[in-house]
Amino acid sequence: MEVVDILKKYSKDIDVEIENSLGTVDPDELQKSTQHLIKAGGKKIRPSLVVLSSEAVGGSAKDALKTAAAVELIHTFSLIHDDIMDKDDMRRGKPSVHIVWGEPMAILAGDTLFSKAFETVLETEIDGVSYERVVNALKTVVDSCIKICEGQAFDMCFEGNFDVKEEEYMKMIYKKTGALIAAATRSGAIIGGGSPVEVETLTAYGRLIGLAFQIQDDYLDVASDEENLGKPVGSDIVEGKMTLMVVHALSNASADDKKEIVSILKADKDTDVDRAIELFEKYGSINYARDIALDNVDQAKKLLETLDESEAKVALAMIADYVLQRNH
Amino acid sequence: MEVVDILKKYSKDIDVEIENSLGTVDPDELQKSTQHLIKAGGKKIRPSLVVLSSEAVGGSAKDALKTAAAVELIHTFSLIHDDIMDKDDMRRGKPSVHIVWGEPMAILAGDTLFSKAFETVLETEIDGVSYERVVNALKTVVDSCIKICEGQAFDMCFEGNFDVKEEEYMKMIYKKTGALIAAATRSGAIIGGGSPVEVETLTAYGRLIGLAFQIQDDYLDVASDEENLGKPVGSDIVEGKMTLMVVHALSNASADDKKEIVSILKADKDTDVDRAIELFEKYGSINYARDIALDNVDQAKKLLETLDESEAKVALAMIADYVLQRNH
Repeated sequence: MEVVDILKKYSKDIDVEIENSLGTVDPDELQKSTQHLIKAGGKKIRPSLVVLSSEAVGGSAKDALKTAAAVELIHTFSLIHDDIMDKDDMRRGKPSVHIVWGEPMAILAGDTLFSKAFETVLETEIDGVSYERVVNALKTVVDSCIKICEGQAFDMCFEGNFDVKEEEYMKMIYKKTGALIAAATRSGAIIGGGSPVEVETLTAYGRLIGLAFQIQDDYLDVASDEENLGKPVGSDIVEGKMTLMVVHALSNASADDKKEIVSILKADKDTDVDRAIELFEKYGSINYARDIALDNVDQAKKLLETLDESEAKVALAMIADYVLQRNH
Repeated sequence: MEVVDILKKYSKDIDVEIENSLGTVDPDELQKSTQHLIKAGGKKIRPSLVVLSSEAVGGSAKDALKTAAAVELIHTFSLIHDDIMDKDDMRRGKPSVHIVWGEPMAILAGDTLFSKAFETVLETEIDGVSYERVVNALKTVVDSCIKICEGQAFDMCFEGNFDVKEEEYMKMIYKKTGALIAAATRSGAIIGGGSPVEVETLTAYGRLIGLAFQIQDDYLDVASDEENLGKPVGSDIVEGKMTLMVVHALSNASADDKKEIVSILKADKDTDVDRAIELFEKYGSINYARDIALDNVDQAKKLLETLDESEAKVALAMIADYVLQRNH
């Protein structure tokens, strides 16, 4: 079985839960704006992790479907609001929600998805999951939402600050990207009735692959090609984005090289991308990022070994590898 | 005891819960933007209703404090996002959050308050309230959040539509304003361990005073004076806002008068305010709105009579009257 088949396995059931949740939103314009990005597709890695984590601790897939849908709703909410904040006009090959419906409706669409996500987790109780598990799963999901907001705020505050330490950068990407993936695996393990050790193991697994996912994103921007990326190589450099490579290079470079990297990042033009990559290579920053991503995935897979054997466990290990295999 | 003393009674404890909730938000800029409107004051009617509703069914005030704080956080979240959408630059006598920190940080501040509200309700469980009550209180709060978003979307969709029916208007203000007040009383009754009948009674009470609250707002815009309002009389007319009086007048006026009212609402100037008020009076629309508000408050107070005697019940009746006594 390939990862794409694993992700497809529950995709339809997750879509049904999402449709049940958003199908009642009124008025029609608000409903359509909440459904826009979801209908545009997406790999559904996060919701699949919820379901697989429930199964990996001996729980059912069915019990975890609503929480899985909720995690996808939260991911979608954050994309819509981030696109407004970052002025990104395209998402998943379609115009962003604020481009189609305007900023006010896009803000509301995000808020609605956010509320609907919590409603969906709470409805798990109707399916017969205990109140205690519902409360604990929801605590996990809510906590990740706070972290997503904090991570985005840190990201905004880092803009134009070239003295960001690696530790600060890692904290930012953990909050912005890692926390929701960790919440996916943790809430799945809780709903599935995992033991405290199993819950912590799957939380740590989620956190590690979440970080690897973001670092791989940074890495691909300089190591992949335009065809696979769907955007020019080095876009992050042109946009002056903070990445693990930038943070590493800046803290290891000579004074002159540091000055040059900063000026390229500030320049907002694509002619210096090759030179920036050359400087990243000079300080081993590209390999450094790749090694950290690899190490995170290795650790994540080692953690899985402590769980009982199951198909879900095999699938989770494959997803960990997939994080680094993808080229876009 | 006056209403202002009732609202003051729990204000400090509610503030402590809010401070506990927001005091951990990181980075500093995000924390400050979430606290901005809360520090600017506010009457704290909604959180007081949560606490009083818990007490009115024989529950404790202490158990309800976290949910009370959550309701105030949600109210604040909706003000911040509404001010962005409606381009309102001032709130509670201070510049709006998006004016001080910019739109991206204001969107995030709202999202953070939203997440923090749910976290705060979930922490009620640590105080010893049962998982079942926490889940049911949270369902109520989450449901009101969905309605707030839908109500704001309807409000935006109604703009420039002069064929809105009274029924549609009432549904919009119920969602936008009434639902959160109903969620305040309902969640308080649930946390306090009210019987199903008590919970439904306090929900209906909250819904009725919530509607009266919004209609009174509409009414004061033409019936109060600039000194009390803190803004010119007839601002809603100048802004072309839909109010119960507008809806009533438009559906009762002659073709010519209807045309005149619409042209005044579209005109965006303050010279025709007196003429609009004259036309509202001609069709009895001002008294109509006032009567509906009065009737809602009467019904709300009658519902309270079915509850056991308590100080909290007396306070709730006083708050119902207060909704119509206030002049700003």
